[in-house]
Amino acid sequence: MKRLIKLSSYFLLVSLLISISGCVDDTSTPSDDIDIKQQNAFQNDILYQVSTIDALLDGLYGGQMSIAELKGHGDTGLGTFDRLDGEMIVVDREVYQMKADGVAYPVEDSATTPFAAVTYFEVDELIVLDDRANSSEVTGLIEEILPSENIMYAIRINGTFEQMKVRSVPAQEEPYPLLVDVIKEEQAVFELENVEGNIVGFWLPYYVEGINVPGYHFHFIDGSREKGGHVLDYVVLNGTVSVDHTTEFELSIPESPEFMDADLSRDNSNDLHIVEKDEG
Amino acid sequence: MKRLIKLSSYFLLVSLLISISGCVDDTSTPSDDIDIKQQNAFQNDILYQVSTIDALLDGLYGGQMSIAELKGHGDTGLGTFDRLDGEMIVVDREVYQMKADGVAYPVEDSATTPFAAVTYFEVDELIVLDDRANSSEVTGLIEEILPSENIMYAIRINGTFEQMKVRSVPAQEEPYPLLVDVIKEEQAVFELENVEGNIVGFWLPYYVEGINVPGYHFHFIDGSREKGGHVLDYVVLNGTVSVDHTTEFELSIPESPEFMDADLSRDNSNDLHIVEKDEG
Repeated sequence: MKRLIKLSSYFLLVSLLISISGCVDDTSTPSDDIDIKQQNAFQNDILYQVSTIDALLDGLYGGQMSIAELKGHGDTGLGTFDRLDGEMIVVDREVYQMKADGVAYPVEDSATTPFAAVTYFEVDELIVLDDRANSSEVTGLIEEILPSENIMYAIRINGTFEQMKVRSVPAQEEPYPLLVDVIKEEQAVFELENVEGNIVGFWLPYYVEGINVPGYHFHFIDGSREKGGHVLDYVVLNGTVSVDHTTEFELSIPESPEFMDADLSRDNSNDLHIVEKDEG
Repeated sequence: MKRLIKLSSYFLLVSLLISISGCVDDTSTPSDDIDIKQQNAFQNDILYQVSTIDALLDGLYGGQMSIAELKGHGDTGLGTFDRLDGEMIVVDREVYQMKADGVAYPVEDSATTPFAAVTYFEVDELIVLDDRANSSEVTGLIEEILPSENIMYAIRINGTFEQMKVRSVPAQEEPYPLLVDVIKEEQAVFELENVEGNIVGFWLPYYVEGINVPGYHFHFIDGSREKGGHVLDYVVLNGTVSVDHTTEFELSIPESPEFMDADLSRDNSNDLHIVEKDEG
């Protein structure tokens, strides 16, 4: 079913696998004009987040941070765009917008996001998947190697997927509806078959409730960077799961009137379940 | 009852008041060997936190970070010490340990904390208190000027207090009891009268539940830095309330076996109320 390899004991082998699979890019300084925040982030396992999941659930879809600024905080992650216009995936330092037509588009630095989370991905643990497995089986394997439910993990799954069911959402107009209503009424679901590509996301502890999504949250893009979305379900034929242990969390709280004036006191936990797990 | 002064419109007057009261120190770079993290913190309104309130409520009292490292992230804040040995206040860049004897002690850089939150304090709003007011009246005044319930605030109250009721807790031995049981059975309460000094603390939004204390959380130290503790209640005769709007939050998640192995899934909200508000 699997081979489970820990970096601590098999560093050379894992390095070789990583080199072959190309799943981790060189993380040397990309430019000379790197700012202090970027240097800081490179030196630490920081998960950096814009706004809160409760704000997004409540319909705060206006962009709060530019993609240029977001990219200064990580090379790997997920989120959405101004007006809830599609699903965001950040992979290999590139940001893609997977719209409700199922197509992945490159993103201008001037675009904005109302909610996103990114990190500089470094592999701490690697699982090789050499047998067909469904999404529950894969998450079961991941849980076997997570050392604690109390820290954060960025996760990347590179593989060939027999099935990949993703969804996206269309841009909204003000007054913005609740996210749960957008999902129920407007989400577009796509079922891809025999597709190679990358899942990117996080496993986060229970105490992020209200701020981000406790448990798993994954987005997918295919290898040709042409299609993808928020992952609803999949079957993988073979691939690798990389896990990055993350023990610093930074939350950027928007200062916009939209965010400052919102009533965020509603309990959104039921909405969150529908939005993240169900098909609307 | 009060004069309410906003920095935006009365900057010079407020600057004068601050100079007179001495409530805000020069925040220029204190040394040449300042590291990147410190520079970053100086440039931003970052609330920096070690571990989570739920971990503390569950009895994780072992020190997770040195005071030297904590001081690199802020000049103002609160927390506790290794083995829950007293209440921490960080004021004017100094850290004091207010033990269960009611006495404030200076703290070595090598001491450690299991839970603390600090920021570099900058005054965004100032309230002048020129009439006697109880704690509810003061928090009522503060709430009149907070622009939103969705961002974070560091708060400092400099004044002369007709009454100041504080508590502290004694160092614990392993296996550590729950914090709620320490408070119920072992907290020491002190009632100071006609004392000049500084309250330092935070107002935090609901979404930090599980991570920190939603609402107010204050510690006090007297002007001679000889006594203080966790604030239970007070009556102020005159003084100033300074509020620092804070829109970045950084959580440092411990990587110790104690933290990694803890079962943090218990709902601690009732415990939190007893620990923060009641007298045990």
